[in-house]
Amino acid sequence: MPVFSQETYTKRRNKLQTDIGSGIILLPGNDDSSMNYKDNIYPFRQDSCFLYFAGIDRPGLTFVIDIDNNREILFGDEYTIEEIMWMGPADSLASQAAKAGITEVRPAAALPDFLLRCRNSGQPVHFLPPYLAGITVKLSAWLDIPVALIPQSVSVTLIKAIVRQREVKTDEELREIEAAVNTTIDMQLKAMELAAAGVTETEIAGGLQAVAIAGGGNISFPVILTVNGQFLHNHPHHTPLQNGQLVLCDCGAENAMHYAGDLTRTHPVNKKFSTVQKEIYDIVHNAYQAAADAIRPGIRYKDVHLLACEKLVQGLTEIGIMKGNAAEAVNAGAHTLFFPCGLGHMMGLDIHDMENLGEEYVGYTDSLKKSTEFGLKSLRLGRELEEGFVFTIEPGIYFNPLLTAAWQSEGKHEQFINYGKLAAYNDFGGVRVEDNFLITANGGRKLGRPFATTATDIENLIAL
Amino acid sequence: MPVFSQETYTKRRNKLQTDIGSGIILLPGNDDSSMNYKDNIYPFRQDSCFLYFAGIDRPGLTFVIDIDNNREILFGDEYTIEEIMWMGPADSLASQAAKAGITEVRPAAALPDFLLRCRNSGQPVHFLPPYLAGITVKLSAWLDIPVALIPQSVSVTLIKAIVRQREVKTDEELREIEAAVNTTIDMQLKAMELAAAGVTETEIAGGLQAVAIAGGGNISFPVILTVNGQFLHNHPHHTPLQNGQLVLCDCGAENAMHYAGDLTRTHPVNKKFSTVQKEIYDIVHNAYQAAADAIRPGIRYKDVHLLACEKLVQGLTEIGIMKGNAAEAVNAGAHTLFFPCGLGHMMGLDIHDMENLGEEYVGYTDSLKKSTEFGLKSLRLGRELEEGFVFTIEPGIYFNPLLTAAWQSEGKHEQFINYGKLAAYNDFGGVRVEDNFLITANGGRKLGRPFATTATDIENLIAL
Repeated sequence: MPVFSQETYTKRRNKLQTDIGSGIILLPGNDDSSMNYKDNIYPFRQDSCFLYFAGIDRPGLTFVIDIDNNREILFGDEYTIEEIMWMGPADSLASQAAKAGITEVRPAAALPDFLLRCRNSGQPVHFLPPYLAGITVKLSAWLDIPVALIPQSVSVTLIKAIVRQREVKTDEELREIEAAVNTTIDMQLKAMELAAAGVTETEIAGGLQAVAIAGGGNISFPVILTVNGQFLHNHPHHTPLQNGQLVLCDCGAENAMHYAGDLTRTHPVNKKFSTVQKEIYDIVHNAYQAAADAIRPGIRYKDVHLLACEKLVQGLTEIGIMKGNAAEAVNAGAHTLFFPCGLGHMMGLDIHDMENLGEEYVGYTDSLKKSTEFGLKSLRLGRELEEGFVFTIEPGIYFNPLLTAAWQSEGKHEQFINYGKLAAYNDFGGVRVEDNFLITANGGRKLGRPFATTATDIENLIAL
Repeated sequence: MPVFSQETYTKRRNKLQTDIGSGIILLPGNDDSSMNYKDNIYPFRQDSCFLYFAGIDRPGLTFVIDIDNNREILFGDEYTIEEIMWMGPADSLASQAAKAGITEVRPAAALPDFLLRCRNSGQPVHFLPPYLAGITVKLSAWLDIPVALIPQSVSVTLIKAIVRQREVKTDEELREIEAAVNTTIDMQLKAMELAAAGVTETEIAGGLQAVAIAGGGNISFPVILTVNGQFLHNHPHHTPLQNGQLVLCDCGAENAMHYAGDLTRTHPVNKKFSTVQKEIYDIVHNAYQAAADAIRPGIRYKDVHLLACEKLVQGLTEIGIMKGNAAEAVNAGAHTLFFPCGLGHMMGLDIHDMENLGEEYVGYTDSLKKSTEFGLKSLRLGRELEEGFVFTIEPGIYFNPLLTAAWQSEGKHEQFINYGKLAAYNDFGGVRVEDNFLITANGGRKLGRPFATTATDIENLIAL
């Protein structure tokens, strides 16, 4: 894995030490994840916080900062000659550590005793919420905390300090993110190239993964490639595409340094939108554009979300699917029949950046808590935007016959929804448009090279 | 996922009940595996024993057989309407269970109490060695066994009974395995099509994964696609291929029902083997053919392995790299400088079939224990072959300069190895030929459609 300069990692760690002040910071790296037996493994994914502070993309490591004694120690083992025989030569751990400015490397087996001595001398041990059971088991053993009590023993101080650093992207990080976005554009182009009547969703999804891997990394999340876009995270199926259908492709690459991209385009299998498809597409694009124009430092993303919802309702009202006052409809939540999710999320080393640290810290604040209402409860980012934030804008309109039937049977929001008109859209599917944005000093900037977003531009692109 | 008939699963379970006799059989299915945060997941892979006996390809399930009370219960939850909104509609759990002949479905939350009552009434609970930390944690909580004691609490009775069933492949299983082998041949053809000077290993590896996904399943293990074949499980790197190099491609598909294929071919980037490359290739192929000709019911696979090793030594002696008596060289282990691993492994629902149950039960017996010597300790299958066994034959010759330097410095096996000749092979790489075989009543049968194995046939194939 390519790495940033030694100074970058040192600076990040120095800031973290200052912010935490005292005690031990314990950052376990990820281990290999098994599929169907121990040694048959998924592609290794290092923990993002470990990557951010220690910069080493290799399983079986733990990084410890002893603030009180000003020591930074990487615990892990060098490969044996037999491991090299199987896996090929690799940089020594000491050399990898040195590239990130870490000078002390100790064997993995020395860690439990080290932590025991820290605890015996009364040093608090700060650790993050684990999301892998293997890490939970290790933390439990190292710190003598029952497995069930690990979640409530995490350090909120450490979480908040890391969120404060990782949420603002530096120029060198932005270059990595843009590289990932550009590979994601290549994936979208491949989807448009492969999509045709008779080709299956899985064939296209496989082709997209090949583009991501060739880009030097891998997919940043499971590919959503579906003619049933109304199911928001539907996985690809083995059914062939048909003319008249819309292909919704929501995919992302992460590059060699594990920074992510995440784009969605929706295009017609037979290369021309029908009148009805174009009507819905234009409404979604209008909401997308309104959100893209609205972002700037200081605006609450929750308000950008609500603005986009209002634009969706206005459009649906113009074509007779909704009715009444748009602002009132959004306030009542009537739009969630068509847009039951959030407008976007933070993005960086994770596609939902830092989601493992807790949305309440990443997307919300002590004064702005996440709503529990249907719709808003799926909005991962609500707080005021700041310069350096990177996030998605991804409005959509989804015609989900199951949800429609459930709502209609209870007459839900009848004053805002023309249920009689909806039967015609039962087979429509869904439309989503998604790009990645950076907050600049005065507004926002779309990341990646220029790439079609309007219905006309997409038609022109796929006609080639 | 397509499934076998209800009768197939019922018959398998009835046999298992009879073999175990009494108590509880506890088969936890796998859960989703997280990458960099909880909800960003790898492609789900169900546990193979769960697939074999319960046939349901979905996370979050546990299957229990209460032999004493003749009950078979699937513990798991139906999807909520909100889950369907995100993921799309799915068969109900009850209907999936019914397809496998399981009539009792209970909520996941009912499992801990159920198991508590079983334990209180003195029923022994048989479970298999877990390979996922999450399953270990669950077993620990359900059965009140400390996490560290789980490995020694597994049921050897259950392991042995399951190995006895799964090791003999039925005709319906063979059809699935052959489908997977044929998709694997498609992957090999794709590797030959894509390989050219300037193309990177990762680009080709990505293309192979696309073929596996389009085949209806996925890769059965991480693709080995490398110009450094001397490193046995080397992962693809971002370096471009060069003319004069050999591409070693060891890859496999698993089909929609999760049966696996596993083939290796080695071919020249510039489409013609050099004289030296062909010499080595022919030696490997000769060993491969000798092994393929030798397999039959009753022969110990360890002896087939040793026969192949002897053929390798004879060939290497003919070209002056080794010397002395071939049988003595193999007996001394001198060949392990060039072939430090095993000739093959069992194959089925897992690419190393049932590896999680323990090689001592799958590949060896109470009377034939696995060797601890370098070379033989990597032979996963040693015991007598039986009709219905499916396994790989995969000899190779690897020139590993690191291992050569280590051996040469201690003068290891000098009476069998002409170290002076080896410097010329430092950049050679490695050659492996691998196919999948079934033991029939009288001998063996290669699985899958015809596919080039000799140097000449491979050259003819890639010249097209």
